[in-house]
Amino acid sequence: MTTSSHLHPDRLFPANPAQRDICRTLYASVKDFPIISPHGHTDPSWFAGNANFGNPAELLIQPDHYVLRMLYSQGLSYESLGLKPKDGVYETDPRKVWQTFAEHYYLFAGTPSRIWLDHVFTEVFGIDKLLTAETAPEFYDIIDAALKSDDFKPRALLDRFKIDLIATTEGALDDLRHHKAMVGSGYEHRVITTFRPDDVVDADKPEFADNLKKLSDLTGFDTTDWAGYLDALRARRAYFRDVGRATATDHGHPTARTENLAPAECQKLLDMCLAGKASAEERDMFRGQMLTEMAGMSLEDGMTMQIHPGSYRNHNPGVYNRFGADKGADIPMRVNYTQALQPLLAKHGNEAGLEIILFTLDESNYARELATLAGHYPCLRLGPPWWFHDSPQGMLRFRDQVTETAGFYNTAGFNDDTRAFLSIPARHDVARRMDSYFLSQLVCEHKITMAEAERLIVDLTYNLAVKAYKLPMKAKSV
Amino acid sequence: MTTSSHLHPDRLFPANPAQRDICRTLYASVKDFPIISPHGHTDPSWFAGNANFGNPAELLIQPDHYVLRMLYSQGLSYESLGLKPKDGVYETDPRKVWQTFAEHYYLFAGTPSRIWLDHVFTEVFGIDKLLTAETAPEFYDIIDAALKSDDFKPRALLDRFKIDLIATTEGALDDLRHHKAMVGSGYEHRVITTFRPDDVVDADKPEFADNLKKLSDLTGFDTTDWAGYLDALRARRAYFRDVGRATATDHGHPTARTENLAPAECQKLLDMCLAGKASAEERDMFRGQMLTEMAGMSLEDGMTMQIHPGSYRNHNPGVYNRFGADKGADIPMRVNYTQALQPLLAKHGNEAGLEIILFTLDESNYARELATLAGHYPCLRLGPPWWFHDSPQGMLRFRDQVTETAGFYNTAGFNDDTRAFLSIPARHDVARRMDSYFLSQLVCEHKITMAEAERLIVDLTYNLAVKAYKLPMKAKSV
Amino acid sequence: MTTSSHLHPDRLFPANPAQRDICRTLYASVKDFPIISPHGHTDPSWFAGNANFGNPAELLIQPDHYVLRMLYSQGLSYESLGLKPKDGVYETDPRKVWQTFAEHYYLFAGTPSRIWLDHVFTEVFGIDKLLTAETAPEFYDIIDAALKSDDFKPRALLDRFKIDLIATTEGALDDLRHHKAMVGSGYEHRVITTFRPDDVVDADKPEFADNLKKLSDLTGFDTTDWAGYLDALRARRAYFRDVGRATATDHGHPTARTENLAPAECQKLLDMCLAGKASAEERDMFRGQMLTEMAGMSLEDGMTMQIHPGSYRNHNPGVYNRFGADKGADIPMRVNYTQALQPLLAKHGNEAGLEIILFTLDESNYARELATLAGHYPCLRLGPPWWFHDSPQGMLRFRDQVTETAGFYNTAGFNDDTRAFLSIPARHDVARRMDSYFLSQLVCEHKITMAEAERLIVDLTYNLAVKAYKLPMKAKSV
Repeated sequence: MTTSSHLHPDRLFPANPAQRDICRTLYASVKDFPIISPHGHTDPSWFAGNANFGNPAELLIQPDHYVLRMLYSQGLSYESLGLKPKDGVYETDPRKVWQTFAEHYYLFAGTPSRIWLDHVFTEVFGIDKLLTAETAPEFYDIIDAALKSDDFKPRALLDRFKIDLIATTEGALDDLRHHKAMVGSGYEHRVITTFRPDDVVDADKPEFADNLKKLSDLTGFDTTDWAGYLDALRARRAYFRDVGRATATDHGHPTARTENLAPAECQKLLDMCLAGKASAEERDMFRGQMLTEMAGMSLEDGMTMQIHPGSYRNHNPGVYNRFGADKGADIPMRVNYTQALQPLLAKHGNEAGLEIILFTLDESNYARELATLAGHYPCLRLGPPWWFHDSPQGMLRFRDQVTETAGFYNTAGFNDDTRAFLSIPARHDVARRMDSYFLSQLVCEHKITMAEAERLIVDLTYNLAVKAYKLPMKAKSV
Repeated sequence: MTTSSHLHPDRLFPANPAQRDICRTLYASVKDFPIISPHGHTDPSWFAGNANFGNPAELLIQPDHYVLRMLYSQGLSYESLGLKPKDGVYETDPRKVWQTFAEHYYLFAGTPSRIWLDHVFTEVFGIDKLLTAETAPEFYDIIDAALKSDDFKPRALLDRFKIDLIATTEGALDDLRHHKAMVGSGYEHRVITTFRPDDVVDADKPEFADNLKKLSDLTGFDTTDWAGYLDALRARRAYFRDVGRATATDHGHPTARTENLAPAECQKLLDMCLAGKASAEERDMFRGQMLTEMAGMSLEDGMTMQIHPGSYRNHNPGVYNRFGADKGADIPMRVNYTQALQPLLAKHGNEAGLEIILFTLDESNYARELATLAGHYPCLRLGPPWWFHDSPQGMLRFRDQVTETAGFYNTAGFNDDTRAFLSIPARHDVARRMDSYFLSQLVCEHKITMAEAERLIVDLTYNLAVKAYKLPMKAKSV
Repeated sequence: MTTSSHLHPDRLFPANPAQRDICRTLYASVKDFPIISPHGHTDPSWFAGNANFGNPAELLIQPDHYVLRMLYSQGLSYESLGLKPKDGVYETDPRKVWQTFAEHYYLFAGTPSRIWLDHVFTEVFGIDKLLTAETAPEFYDIIDAALKSDDFKPRALLDRFKIDLIATTEGALDDLRHHKAMVGSGYEHRVITTFRPDDVVDADKPEFADNLKKLSDLTGFDTTDWAGYLDALRARRAYFRDVGRATATDHGHPTARTENLAPAECQKLLDMCLAGKASAEERDMFRGQMLTEMAGMSLEDGMTMQIHPGSYRNHNPGVYNRFGADKGADIPMRVNYTQALQPLLAKHGNEAGLEIILFTLDESNYARELATLAGHYPCLRLGPPWWFHDSPQGMLRFRDQVTETAGFYNTAGFNDDTRAFLSIPARHDVARRMDSYFLSQLVCEHKITMAEAERLIVDLTYNLAVKAYKLPMKAKSV
């Protein structure tokens, strides 16, 4: 590992010397492990087509909603960052966008974006200095030149990053053409998809009825009929497994609500939703029922189910209307799990074969609801700290509040959940460092032995993700 | 104290050497104090009958819902742990159950169960090694032999554990025969009861009307009449004080709701509840009214009142139907205190003689609601971190979030709340260590002097519990 | 700085030696900075009239609701502390009140009140010992004598405390006579007001209709007409700017609810509120609409807007009825920001000129809602930890939970929010120490460089407050 003044080998480690030594030892044992990335949002066309990435601004600034939101919050317009609005002018020179970004790089002090970006600059591009207004042009030149080279093509980076597996995420209606195209390339078992049916279960979406028509066309089932609709979903899940090697589904709902309704009620709700006559409450109930249905299908087909609730999407209509979704205007809401998940868990919660991974943006649930649910129900696992909490302190808070009740083995390892491909090694490195940090404290306070910590860091880094996502990799041992 | 590789004398102490030294000094000053256990769930028949306990599995695994829930969450069936289901086979060989437990002991890394169990193995049974699949039979033999000896009978353990007082908990209809039987044994002032009226104030329970009939039979009051019902409760409180030396009541409600209704409204609610016609809202209102009534009676008779809200009992119907209550399927819910307690506090909150101890499973209330309420109302004290939060980090979070607003003297000392009798010394030891930990940080950061910390650790370990539960013990001084 | 056994120069600094050294360096660079106090509740008549303060009890105990609440929570009556009840006797000898306070000073161990008071005793009055029952008379004599001297007159203390600016808070109907009186004194730009319109926007207040009549009389606008009412508010805002040099408004609402209603609906709500016929929900809606209106006026006139939601005022009717408001019986409630603020933010959230500072008493919102909102919307800044959270650990929790998502530059610097004038240096000192503490950890864990920390501590101590409140001070540099 290259070291530099701003990327210290002991970064994120505890300051106490005795604890830091233990932390270093634990981290050293896993820092070179291959990466398993079982949940994320990279573009499968990158790995299918293997074309070079674009310029530094296009790759590192414009798609990164963490970066955009911080700059926007401090008064920079999206236009000045090169985002194309619905109408009006915007900055089209990526060098100018890069310069603007560099001038405001100090805003990221104390944030994970700063850690990830410094890692990318130093470890991926070999630039051993801090990004400032002055160094910005040099950074741009180095990164831009690198991106044009064969060494920085997507597949070369997969190899260089030692990514053994990466999962993308596609909607239920996607044809998975890029995943299909990878067959025979040698990369088809390293890049897999994830089944995300939000578009065909969430009647809040204006195109819901159209989507169900498409779902019917794709599968041959009558999606206006409750049983037909469920069969159509089964068919798409099978397609995602067969064509995209999917092992998991993902569900991004506003709440964690689940229901367990009789089929006749379900048919009525489906009718109302298709007719556009369902109330907000009925659409919510329908989504809740669909989570329970999806859990039932997971029991049938073995796919791991992921539930990501609690984000108020596109909170800022001004930004959404001018720039579209995923521009940093998603804001977390308080979430209930205990009552909300009860109907699903009452029905399927004791099934041995079922694997459901819960995520949260509402940390007040870690100790109260999530650790206690996962510490009881055999089907439940807790996903890593999600999104805004994918950060050093976010990870410590997660382990601090979850471990005493759920232990380590009811957690699901790390996943990066990112579309920022170049930051994947940085993100996994932070997780490995912070898990080492947490374990080193347990060792120092004589809660576990060093031998136990050495086993745990391997499990947290690799084995738990493999198991939770039912991946074919062999478990690693100490 | 025996030390061993896995039960370090500095366990749970801070890693920083200067702080650890202070922590050691504080802990040393209280580690041999007798134990006051003013709230818990041990079985009074143990202390009345003084028979030997059963085998290791029956004593240490099967009644411990912390242990059961973790093993169940990782896919072990309750049957394999020797729990008798409603129907079907289960493991009846306690040695096999013990072996299964030992093979999965690694799951408890980082949990308080691990700390308590290691303490029990080492300190109570003198086994100076780690429990593993290999050492399991040796553990079983040693523990099983010990349990058959006179030294491990309940009263001998009370003496050995230096338990000066232990409170059990009985329902309002209990005849307290075991507490009665202890009179004259020399143990009657060490083992007392607690009045728990949930069964006769909670109309959610199907047997509510039957229970009120029994309450009427026991007391001679007409429990279909509001005033008669209250008098019947007064009579049972008196019985618990007279026969069971009770100094406190305990109330396990789903929420902290209180009400202050006119008697005519109360009579109407009682009628509806008895007729089984009360809505969920009306039953909740009735429970809320009863908390206020109980506070009023505490003013009359001086009993300390404990409120334990926020547990969704028997969340898992599959487990409940096959194995009954208290099998680890209770899950915390978000709780409101500020608005919920206002009616009770508006009525009785300023009374000097009243003592109400609040508990929570919802830590988000520590700083926001609980510390601010206890830091104002003279009747309120905060109970120690409860249940899932009875853990090293749970205790630190409690002190961290409560102390700055409520100070130390609005807290009620430690209580173990356990049915796992052998773990009581371990649990109090953890509390003493963590209070020393917290105080050592205040000393190191020059927030309090060492002399103050030395007084505080004595108060936190002993005097605050004596005072909050109005026990006859003399205060200890530095 | 005077040092003493109980006011250590390293107080509040981390125990780890390497981190403490960094912390000392950072703190040393800002400890002598002048104080900017842009939000608080000191009495403008002090600075206008410049009369001596009263006795020690009258100055340090009776107006301090932190002190009162703790003593009251431990059973001391307000009468014994010299508070005059509606009827009945009370202690009128300030020496006796002081003695009672001193005898219970141990209750404050671990609270910020203890830190502030020790600082006042040592740094302001030069008493280098701990307050106890024994030292109480000596303390009283020294403080009482000092308060009679010219050196302890309000303006002398403003100079001695190096307070460059202090903002008081006045209701919308206030004539600002004291602020007017200061013109020409040389203090008029150091003491400014803040516009607080709660009395004329909150129809929960019984005097609401009367207040709107007064508002009409003061401004000449018809406040029964929606447009006239808004113009009257505009006129008062202008008055506060012109006569009181106000740069900010402050809004203390029960919730953070905002609305964006059509003018006709607003007129209807206003009519209902004036007629006393509005329901609780309608009064809440009206308050919500008024927050959005106030944001719109801030856009027009440039005043910074502060929102302080979530306090249940006068929770204890017994105390309120006997002693009035602000006697420590305000209790925080859970608050929602994400959904509640959306209407206001949808309307004005992207405006460059707007500055809205959000406060909370509900820490569960720091990471979930507040950091994510402030980390996106250009108009939002987060105020410092408020009220019960204005404390060492409260500040650490704030930075810990906010920084990774919102960074440092979406926070608004420190403000003391106090009526306890003598404690202002103590409170700013605590903030400077805790910001140094937090930054020293980032440096030790190699998250930021020392040079960045040195810049940040200056910004956090001075520049961010100047910017957020649009004050005329020049920015300080490292």
